[in-house]
Amino acid sequence: MSLKPEDFSCPLPLTAHDTVQLAHGSGGRLTAELVDKFFLPRFANPTLARLEDQAVLDCPAGRLAFTTDTFVVDPLFFPGGSIGELAVNGTVNDVAMGGARPLWLSAAFVIEEGLPLAVLHAVLLAMEKAAQAAGVSIVTGDTKVVQKGACDKLFINTTGLGVVPDGINLSAANLQPGDAVLLSGTIADHGLAILTCREGLSFESRIESDTAALYGLVAVVLAVCPEMRAMRDPTRGGVATTLNEFAKSSGMGIMLREEAIPVRPAVRAACEVLGIDPLYVANEGKLVAVVPAAQAETVLAAMRAHPLGRHAVRLGEVTAKNPGLVAMRTALGTHRIIDMPVGEQLPRIC
Amino acid sequence: MSLKPEDFSCPLPLTAHDTVQLAHGSGGRLTAELVDKFFLPRFANPTLARLEDQAVLDCPAGRLAFTTDTFVVDPLFFPGGSIGELAVNGTVNDVAMGGARPLWLSAAFVIEEGLPLAVLHAVLLAMEKAAQAAGVSIVTGDTKVVQKGACDKLFINTTGLGVVPDGINLSAANLQPGDAVLLSGTIADHGLAILTCREGLSFESRIESDTAALYGLVAVVLAVCPEMRAMRDPTRGGVATTLNEFAKSSGMGIMLREEAIPVRPAVRAACEVLGIDPLYVANEGKLVAVVPAAQAETVLAAMRAHPLGRHAVRLGEVTAKNPGLVAMRTALGTHRIIDMPVGEQLPRIC
Repeated sequence: MSLKPEDFSCPLPLTAHDTVQLAHGSGGRLTAELVDKFFLPRFANPTLARLEDQAVLDCPAGRLAFTTDTFVVDPLFFPGGSIGELAVNGTVNDVAMGGARPLWLSAAFVIEEGLPLAVLHAVLLAMEKAAQAAGVSIVTGDTKVVQKGACDKLFINTTGLGVVPDGINLSAANLQPGDAVLLSGTIADHGLAILTCREGLSFESRIESDTAALYGLVAVVLAVCPEMRAMRDPTRGGVATTLNEFAKSSGMGIMLREEAIPVRPAVRAACEVLGIDPLYVANEGKLVAVVPAAQAETVLAAMRAHPLGRHAVRLGEVTAKNPGLVAMRTALGTHRIIDMPVGEQLPRIC
Repeated sequence: MSLKPEDFSCPLPLTAHDTVQLAHGSGGRLTAELVDKFFLPRFANPTLARLEDQAVLDCPAGRLAFTTDTFVVDPLFFPGGSIGELAVNGTVNDVAMGGARPLWLSAAFVIEEGLPLAVLHAVLLAMEKAAQAAGVSIVTGDTKVVQKGACDKLFINTTGLGVVPDGINLSAANLQPGDAVLLSGTIADHGLAILTCREGLSFESRIESDTAALYGLVAVVLAVCPEMRAMRDPTRGGVATTLNEFAKSSGMGIMLREEAIPVRPAVRAACEVLGIDPLYVANEGKLVAVVPAAQAETVLAAMRAHPLGRHAVRLGEVTAKNPGLVAMRTALGTHRIIDMPVGEQLPRIC
């Protein structure tokens, strides 16, 4: 899709006929070759290079954030990224949303027999770059190969570990009436990039995934507001789902202002054509933060000074009214309930 | 396969028509229902119950063992266990092979649309029991649903964390000439159980998987021999692959005695009929340990006193001769090289 020739630059002479075979997952010689020639050069670090059955990590005393995600996105490459960036950034972000500094990742691959090795290589390159950008090391891994038809191309699980700084206690249960609900930028970019690419739709402006590692932005925000209540990245189910989770966990209401919601014009146009509400579409490089009202402007200014938060907005506020519900004051002045999504409009977007 | 009616006892009235739908992976209301009704009751613990995007763990200072594995076994249920037990025990064992006490697991599910909810429930029950038996908590998770045909029924990734005690330093690189190579019991049970079940073969005695959590045995062994050099569980690729990894990492040779290798009669008979060498077949409840020769008898005695090590044997020894190679003195007195497997004789056994 957005695969470029340079993505295939590879230490091995590879053709389209060089594919992953069942024996690459046997645990034997071909598995060792795959690890030596494809995985280790990309994820080089002393812990992984030991090639034991487990990474041994020197860990400070304190609180660890631990989170897992499997990536099954289809297609593997899409405007703005690939399953490789998603697999690193998605898990790094779930660590970061706990206020933790992401340090280590595991990576486990399920590969369909017949996947071109050049495709695997391009995905690993994307993971390498994303891990470097996010400041994390991939320290342990696993590879399984299943027969043709038993999985669709490639699934990647990453599990992340990070260290939660003292004094930071983020939880959806912390919300208080009057708190401000902030959003770090435009919504629905990732989901629409996948959808338009998958369906072969094109709009005047290219819609690109927003996949990014958010810890840099998190660190800036926590530095100015350690009293932060909660933070979450609105991936599957979009901002609507994240806010509903916040409302449910805290027993508070949330009131949004429709005109505050930032949506790129191309994304808004695509959503209108397709009949999709951007509030329910996945993002991969955005965060929703709830902060005490008194800190809202300071945090917004800090977000906007960071490249990943330039379009940050104050989306709404936490209310004692309507406990457990998310509502929106529309541009017309009416109110509507923003419910949890029931169906699945966009499967396999991450 | 070996699903029994009581495996389907479920808090919900389920029929074969109640299946997993794409919307169960949307992140929305059906995902929340699946988590509330199926996952949380099985893996109940305060960390998971917070339902944040990450588990926050109170961790002692020191060394952590961190390991990942995705389970794609086919069929999901087989004599002696299911993908549920494997997913817990397999990762717990990779943690334990580092000498670490397993404490926490993540669990990430990729489910094929249309999987009966009763099957998912039976797998979760198996995971619950296995986690209790192994003394670990499943503290964070993820669920993806892919459309029919995009994966075969159910894949489970588990990633494990454990604490390595001070003074324990296990590594395949540690082997010294003269060290004894010990094996905790009979080999090839798991791989043959899967194969005979999958192919519909039956032998006089039923062949059952040996899936088990090995930390109890590890703790006993480390207590009598903290100078242990290395430990590994011979899963994919079998004992032959594990020993080749040991030889390659340490630059030592390994010499086995054929008559020492313990194989159950039914497994041996099945291997002969099928033309399979049991040394290359996966185990899921055995460990290979390398210890200084002076400790070998003490460790063997400790293993044999533990239910999971009753059939432990001294398999051979580490040699300065033949660096990087594994050889075997056969019952006839000849020698042969035990190489890494090249092909894949038994795909999807774990």
